[in-house]
Amino acid sequence: MAESTNMRLRLPLLCIILEVILIILFGTLVEYNDDTHAMLWNENRTDSATRNDHENEFYYRYPSFQDVHVMIFVGFGFLMTFLQRYGFSSVGFNFLIAAFSLQWATLMQGFFHGLHHGKIHVGVTSMINADFCTGSVLISFGAVLGKTSPVQLLVMAIFEVTLFAVNEFILLSILGINDAGGSMTIHTFGAYFGLMVTRVLYRPNLDKSKHRNSSVYHSDLFAMIGTIYLWMFWPSFNSAITNYGDPQHRTAMNTYYSLAACTLATFAFSALVNPEGKLDMVHIQNAALAGGVAVGTAGEMMLTAFGAMIVGFLAGTISYHVCCCFIQDTCGIHNLHGMPGVLGAVVGAVTAALASPDVYGHGLQRVFADVETGKWNPQSRGGFQAISLAVTLGMALFGGLITGFILKLPIYGAPPDTHCFEDGLYWEVPGEEEGHQELYEVATSNEVEKLSS
Amino acid sequence: MAESTNMRLRLPLLCIILEVILIILFGTLVEYNDDTHAMLWNENRTDSATRNDHENEFYYRYPSFQDVHVMIFVGFGFLMTFLQRYGFSSVGFNFLIAAFSLQWATLMQGFFHGLHHGKIHVGVTSMINADFCTGSVLISFGAVLGKTSPVQLLVMAIFEVTLFAVNEFILLSILGINDAGGSMTIHTFGAYFGLMVTRVLYRPNLDKSKHRNSSVYHSDLFAMIGTIYLWMFWPSFNSAITNYGDPQHRTAMNTYYSLAACTLATFAFSALVNPEGKLDMVHIQNAALAGGVAVGTAGEMMLTAFGAMIVGFLAGTISYHVCCCFIQDTCGIHNLHGMPGVLGAVVGAVTAALASPDVYGHGLQRVFADVETGKWNPQSRGGFQAISLAVTLGMALFGGLITGFILKLPIYGAPPDTHCFEDGLYWEVPGEEEGHQELYEVATSNEVEKLSS
Amino acid sequence: MAESTNMRLRLPLLCIILEVILIILFGTLVEYNDDTHAMLWNENRTDSATRNDHENEFYYRYPSFQDVHVMIFVGFGFLMTFLQRYGFSSVGFNFLIAAFSLQWATLMQGFFHGLHHGKIHVGVTSMINADFCTGSVLISFGAVLGKTSPVQLLVMAIFEVTLFAVNEFILLSILGINDAGGSMTIHTFGAYFGLMVTRVLYRPNLDKSKHRNSSVYHSDLFAMIGTIYLWMFWPSFNSAITNYGDPQHRTAMNTYYSLAACTLATFAFSALVNPEGKLDMVHIQNAALAGGVAVGTAGEMMLTAFGAMIVGFLAGTISYHVCCCFIQDTCGIHNLHGMPGVLGAVVGAVTAALASPDVYGHGLQRVFADVETGKWNPQSRGGFQAISLAVTLGMALFGGLITGFILKLPIYGAPPDTHCFEDGLYWEVPGEEEGHQELYEVATSNEVEKLSS
Repeated sequence: MAESTNMRLRLPLLCIILEVILIILFGTLVEYNDDTHAMLWNENRTDSATRNDHENEFYYRYPSFQDVHVMIFVGFGFLMTFLQRYGFSSVGFNFLIAAFSLQWATLMQGFFHGLHHGKIHVGVTSMINADFCTGSVLISFGAVLGKTSPVQLLVMAIFEVTLFAVNEFILLSILGINDAGGSMTIHTFGAYFGLMVTRVLYRPNLDKSKHRNSSVYHSDLFAMIGTIYLWMFWPSFNSAITNYGDPQHRTAMNTYYSLAACTLATFAFSALVNPEGKLDMVHIQNAALAGGVAVGTAGEMMLTAFGAMIVGFLAGTISYHVCCCFIQDTCGIHNLHGMPGVLGAVVGAVTAALASPDVYGHGLQRVFADVETGKWNPQSRGGFQAISLAVTLGMALFGGLITGFILKLPIYGAPPDTHCFEDGLYWEVPGEEEGHQELYEVATSNEVEKLSS
Repeated sequence: MAESTNMRLRLPLLCIILEVILIILFGTLVEYNDDTHAMLWNENRTDSATRNDHENEFYYRYPSFQDVHVMIFVGFGFLMTFLQRYGFSSVGFNFLIAAFSLQWATLMQGFFHGLHHGKIHVGVTSMINADFCTGSVLISFGAVLGKTSPVQLLVMAIFEVTLFAVNEFILLSILGINDAGGSMTIHTFGAYFGLMVTRVLYRPNLDKSKHRNSSVYHSDLFAMIGTIYLWMFWPSFNSAITNYGDPQHRTAMNTYYSLAACTLATFAFSALVNPEGKLDMVHIQNAALAGGVAVGTAGEMMLTAFGAMIVGFLAGTISYHVCCCFIQDTCGIHNLHGMPGVLGAVVGAVTAALASPDVYGHGLQRVFADVETGKWNPQSRGGFQAISLAVTLGMALFGGLITGFILKLPIYGAPPDTHCFEDGLYWEVPGEEEGHQELYEVATSNEVEKLSS
Repeated sequence: MAESTNMRLRLPLLCIILEVILIILFGTLVEYNDDTHAMLWNENRTDSATRNDHENEFYYRYPSFQDVHVMIFVGFGFLMTFLQRYGFSSVGFNFLIAAFSLQWATLMQGFFHGLHHGKIHVGVTSMINADFCTGSVLISFGAVLGKTSPVQLLVMAIFEVTLFAVNEFILLSILGINDAGGSMTIHTFGAYFGLMVTRVLYRPNLDKSKHRNSSVYHSDLFAMIGTIYLWMFWPSFNSAITNYGDPQHRTAMNTYYSLAACTLATFAFSALVNPEGKLDMVHIQNAALAGGVAVGTAGEMMLTAFGAMIVGFLAGTISYHVCCCFIQDTCGIHNLHGMPGVLGAVVGAVTAALASPDVYGHGLQRVFADVETGKWNPQSRGGFQAISLAVTLGMALFGGLITGFILKLPIYGAPPDTHCFEDGLYWEVPGEEEGHQELYEVATSNEVEKLSS
């Protein structure tokens, strides 16, 4: 006997309680930073005008922020619409958990990344970081897509955002490593967290819903909207929070070439693994993006277009040769984020270990901040990058395990095995067939002809 | 006996006449401004290079402009595709009236907002303002969607753009108030103008078309494209024409938090008001955006993320508790633009009344321009903001009334009550069913298999 | 007896070989430019800080680049989804050949446009130029859409990119003409190259597939996504590589007004040419964009909004009065890119011939680079622009002829006449009908009701 999936009280209560808590915490803890505060930004302007408006971080970061924002809401949202009858939930729940996560992430990241006299300072950079953390939650969402209620997803987001901030704090602040595009912090963490959650939530009888666990023609076209947006804006994603100037420029370019090379590998292997040589749209939707993930760490380094293309080609290739379907990974996040994220961490470690003033000149300290403090050493830097991967995997798997067991409690209105991948459970779903048929009839009817004659 | 809906002469004649008039007026009245004119921009560059290229307004405003442009053409256009058989008209008429309105708005706004020796100066800021005015027309379009011919819509745009410019002139130039994101000038004006027009055009027998006045599965997904784009780019909308530096940065951020909080309220109330606790996609499409509207006036002020989230949460909440369906408001613009616009005006008045140099420092005059002239007084400022709301409501309702009666004349080829919400009246509509069925057959046919073996 | 269309070996082999060659050539020839190289960008920063980060070309060009990128992948990709059963191929092959072309274009353009000590320097400007060249290939793709295998398309791209770079070199470097938005280099070249290829590949029995060579309701809505994105971002396209400051600003604005005027002409003539006065979505998808093409050359000049609107209106008009359907131009690229491109070249020649220091002031040399060298003469400049058109047409037609014959070899797995415009040949195509029907049934089933009660 399945539990009720009715959301009438559970979802509103959870949303309202969460939002009220968020509002109280924002009221207590959050302040404008120097670039968004009317007084602070303008205080030095009266004398020597040391800060001109074009130096406000807004103009360096906002276009990248908007691209990242599009990836989070359109990219992830529509990528997951490939399921034939789960489009509302894919876009809708993506919308809900992203809107929650970015608020919660602002608090968690602000708390760990340095309070200013007990206050969290916010501006466009914190907005990008909050979107990044949200991206990690949406990656995990991909693994459990179709098998969870919106209440479960919100609960998952609460825990995942918190652990994401802890892991990010360990990597960036304690170990002091580089990961501008988040190969480790975002992709590896999000993927293995999600894979562990879906493993714990394993449903032995999921094949009762397997006829819905596939795409139809139009749903694949909607999903391509998501794929293409993620693909196009990945250069902005990886470069959004690097240092200004050459690092930001270089990161965008390395990512661009990695993705292009990855796409050719993707089409090659999609045709090769199919007995009739036919391309598979769902494969392409995922594998073509692996190139962006895999240069997430090394993108800001002097990887060169050549190096980026090799990494992209490898990422597109491995994305076809590993599968975690046995643990019910709905969107194949192991292929899209997990493996390429690990590859990205390794590439980042190697590239960092090879960094030297001969190549970077005075630019070295703009990529590796600890050069200035004199503690920098390329080999140990490479080592720290590698340690970070291990920490991330540990945090993700352990966090996913705990969270998975919490989500297993029968209080969230999870769908029964027979009704997974089904919008009708949580949404008012209008019909489809009726409309079209009538449309066709009316459009060709004599009446219309008469009216417009 | 209904009038003919044939557009063969009416629409081409109107379009061509309007465009010829526009071209003549542009030729007579419009000039490049200082930042787009080859001579004017470069005249001082030979000596001390007082103006660097990065100071051209293009680099401060163009990314915001493009986001606003996407909201106007993709956001509004696809938001209205939720109707099952009105997708062509939603996107297509949106396209037509927006392309007309932005040209007409350039003239009207230029005329009222200060001629330079009898000439209208254009650049990226005038382009943003023209898009803003167009947005107001598209809001009204949402109220009459499905019940009007393209000729009627163009005529409505002629009047609405003109009155918009007059109202904007009264508010910004005479009363000297702030409304960067247009809670009053754009949303309140557009909504109540449209509601009055649709009231005057009331059709007692509209239920003859009610089977088409609803969504189908795929049309709701297309509409989500519109919703999500509006939602994502609203921070750019509200900040597009604020002062450079901290005001632009702050406005984007306040809007971001308002929208996030609004979204959680939206999902909460959508599930709560449904007897089975199911979410309603059309509700969410509209209510989630109310948070952007409601911080349109106060967004550039020191509202704080905390204040923005409260406003957003309220906006998402009230959006469920009022309905103007009885006056045949097709897209529910009263909930999305009307109520939240009024809320935004009130929040703006309160926030302006609370402004002080203690909070804003030297930044005060960058938000409230009249500080410099010494005429500034926060309380009277708050009062002027409130008066502006009354003026806007008056202009919108009176203008809508007149325009409604003009649109009632039986010369525009309006659809009969039996054929509202129907693309087939004005468009060559291809079938749908046939294609798919054949597609499916062919795709699985032996012949294809043989070919690719 | 048709040849096999199986792609299992052909496509993977070609993709992998091409990518390996690209990687080797990038490794040998490509270097970071001054703005992306850590050492070069930072070398002067230690002393007088002559270069500030905001002067990095990234901040002038990257937002435009992203808009162009969206046009290439979403704009072109979805524009071509109008065919009822060719959506996967339209978006998918667009994706594949664009990802290849931008890499190959980087090499070809870098080779012709000036090596630096034998090396090609890359940065955001080369990325935009590579995307531009890719755009030209995608235009040609529009002519052969539905009648070619992905292997043929890749082979076409190899030749077209190469010839594009040669033609661009002749025009920009030898003849020294202006063509920032590519009326000639991109649109005229791409269109006539593609038209010649499709002419050579003429299929007398194509009517065997004619029932698939049309749109259905939803495919036209997907195509509108492409149209609208192209339309909105065309100002960014034309202005992406102009000089900084007033030229970039002016180009964006001229394009904006040209497109708006073109759209009104488009709707006028679409209704006028239809016997029942009904609008045709496919017409509008193409004609509305002609205004962007037609100001591609003159956009950066002092064309004025008035001039731009006249050009746009003309472009929208001629787009309806010529047809090249008899040579099997699937997407009507002759109307969208061919004719408007030629118009754009003519407008550019006239506008250049009328240029004078009286109008441009010190800005003259920022538009016409040869002013500084003293070789500038407006009349001869106009003449060179006209010669460039002839060169472009010659190169395109001759190149298309050769390439067409190469593509005619029966080794690429081209579709038979009976299976053109059919995704099922190269893609795993899921069904459509089944899903929906079930969806509807389940969504309204008692079981669901019970679960959520």
